Amino acid sequence: MHSRLPEVGTSIFAVMSKMALDHHAINLSQGFPDFAIDDAIIDQVYRFMKDGNNQYAPMSGVPALRNSIAEVLKKTFGFAADAETNITITAGATEGLFAAISAVVGAGDEVIVFDPAYDSYNPAIRLNGGVPVHINLRYPDYTIDWDEVKRKISPRTKLIMINTPHNPCGVVLSHNDLVMLERIVLEHNLYVLSDEVYERLIYDGERHQSVLRFPGLANHSIAVFSFGKTFHATGWKAGYVVASEKITREIRKTHQFIVFSVNTPVQCALAEYLKTPQHYESLGQFYQQKRDYFLNGIKGSSFEPLACRGSYFQLLSYKNVSAKGDVAMAEYLTKEFKVASIPISVFYQDKSDHQILRFCFAKKEETLARACEILSKF
Amino acid sequence: MHSRLPEVGTSIFAVMSKMALDHHAINLSQGFPDFAIDDAIIDQVYRFMKDGNNQYAPMSGVPALRNSIAEVLKKTFGFAADAETNITITAGATEGLFAAISAVVGAGDEVIVFDPAYDSYNPAIRLNGGVPVHINLRYPDYTIDWDEVKRKISPRTKLIMINTPHNPCGVVLSHNDLVMLERIVLEHNLYVLSDEVYERLIYDGERHQSVLRFPGLANHSIAVFSFGKTFHATGWKAGYVVASEKITREIRKTHQFIVFSVNTPVQCALAEYLKTPQHYESLGQFYQQKRDYFLNGIKGSSFEPLACRGSYFQLLSYKNVSAKGDVAMAEYLTKEFKVASIPISVFYQDKSDHQILRFCFAKKEETLARACEILSKF
Ligand SMILES: CSCCC(=O)C(=O)O
Ligand SMILES: CSCCC(=O)C(=O)O
Repeated sequence: MHSRLPEVGTSIFAVMSKMALDHHAINLSQGFPDFAIDDAIIDQVYRFMKDGNNQYAPMSGVPALRNSIAEVLKKTFGFAADAETNITITAGATEGLFAAISAVVGAGDEVIVFDPAYDSYNPAIRLNGGVPVHINLRYPDYTIDWDEVKRKISPRTKLIMINTPHNPCGVVLSHNDLVMLERIVLEHNLYVLSDEVYERLIYDGERHQSVLRFPGLANHSIAVFSFGKTFHATGWKAGYVVASEKITREIRKTHQFIVFSVNTPVQCALAEYLKTPQHYESLGQFYQQKRDYFLNGIKGSSFEPLACRGSYFQLLSYKNVSAKGDVAMAEYLTKEFKVASIPISVFYQDKSDHQILRFCFAKKEETLARACEILSKF
Repeated sequence: MHSRLPEVGTSIFAVMSKMALDHHAINLSQGFPDFAIDDAIIDQVYRFMKDGNNQYAPMSGVPALRNSIAEVLKKTFGFAADAETNITITAGATEGLFAAISAVVGAGDEVIVFDPAYDSYNPAIRLNGGVPVHINLRYPDYTIDWDEVKRKISPRTKLIMINTPHNPCGVVLSHNDLVMLERIVLEHNLYVLSDEVYERLIYDGERHQSVLRFPGLANHSIAVFSFGKTFHATGWKAGYVVASEKITREIRKTHQFIVFSVNTPVQCALAEYLKTPQHYESLGQFYQQKRDYFLNGIKGSSFEPLACRGSYFQLLSYKNVSAKGDVAMAEYLTKEFKVASIPISVFYQDKSDHQILRFCFAKKEETLARACEILSKF
């Protein structure tokens, strides 16, 4: 059988989570919390199921949820979204990304992707006939070289994908980055797909620079958000995309044939839950504490932390203590030391290996404490 | 903005459901039940959420659910599925169809589609660079002309899509149809995508001819099933696809980048619920009663029923009493008589209009009674 994605194997997340399980290792690889979610939202889902909300939601999402999101966008980014024409509920951010790419990218269209990049970007582009053009973030500060971006733009360039706060690097784009991006996008009439699933996980007084804060840019952009990341429920598979009316119309065309609609009781519950700002406003603080707890725990170890300003991932470099490649090191740490992480070379098209591992700190303090104890012995 | 699906508008299901709402019409258009689902399964979802099953499910699905499905496939079709390598849980059958098409169909590949066809088939093929080749079912018995199929096969033909029990026509494929299909598929080395979401809604002692009952065919096929249709919960968005290990490997590659995984507590609950065969075994009887109730209710009216052997859709012809096209008639009936249906010409690439409307009878008896009373006055 001819494969459309011949080089794609099992995802690194599945590989490392399985290795963690098989070797009874603490799993800091795949990005998901190990603590309980809020009972209040579970009870809401239950209530909506009992009340008979179990049939197809509207294709674009439950209106009450889109209205709640519009309120949040206004309050958070000062962005005036029309719930009817700018917001679409998706089966998680992954489907949001895929639907957006299918809507915008056709045969031969080039898409600029910054590496290290989340593993779905490249195949999603290729499945739609597009051509990914990869640019590495500058090492070791993981910033974008905008001059290189300009050099890589061709008449076939259609879309630029960004991700802030960044997975796996934990960096955030600056105001200046967005200004540069806006300039380029308007000059060349491009689109931007902005993966902002960690929008609320931002630390040290940084501000999340959403594309929605920049009117000229917002008009050319699709911003992707995740309820799974924000409400600790990655298994509920609900997210949303925000875009202009014109772009939204196209996204809904593909979304409707990809999944049609999203779990109805989950959407109804989220509509209620979003009405209480306390449910999401202190998330930055909550995770900053976890980051600091983790950083504190590995202080004095052989691992050197890189700066983490957002996301729930901490990069650790081990290049001063070992010559191992990061894939081998992740495997070794999991099997011999019982802590699983993600080697970040797999997120580079050119497999750049800077001997850095990614650790997810969206975990209970006791989990982090056990992991740090082990890592400190390394 | 350049559109990848320029001719696609709002889906007929959304259009008619909205029209029904706006005109306070009884909604027999979009295919979903209007009665409550089993409390037992709701309680299971709740329990699994409370027990902390709220993070990513494995990409291919919760193992317990795949095991339960393997049992059902063995019992129902005598098909020995390996839960590990043959079954993938999808975000509804729609995503199952999309993931399968993305896995199998690449640029320039031709796909045979029988019209009238569910509205996602054609755009899903085109988004993946494929070329849909439409063949009309024979009117008025909606059977497949296998000689025409043979004539339409070219060196570029890759896939044949079938749907049994059939939406919107309510016909079912015969044993002989599957034998013909198997012969053609093996001779030309093609794949089959078999939409079997109404597998259990089959009447008058008919037997569902799943591709999984034919070993040679099964090896070249992807069969798509829906928990939404089977357990009256279309809004939960859970389904599954069954295919050989080789094909499954490719489907999982695309599935993982389309949605990654499916709602975890819903999967856990379904795994339990499937263990009780009574939960699905009497579904045919249950819906046959509804079909007969509806048929009885319109007896003596101006509408002439076509044969319905499966699915929850009844076709009614009005060609002896009006010259209106079916789109105009569906609109007229909704606005003036307050019963919404689906015009089936929209499911034809060539817009064939035989003056036939589709009515969904997955409704409470009181709903059907009210609709029949109105339709009888027409
Ligand atoms: C979809 S599994 C991967 C989860 C995640 O976002 C990550 O670990 O980077
Ligand atoms: C996904 S909305 C359409 C539901 C359905 O299967 C139908 O009405 O044919």
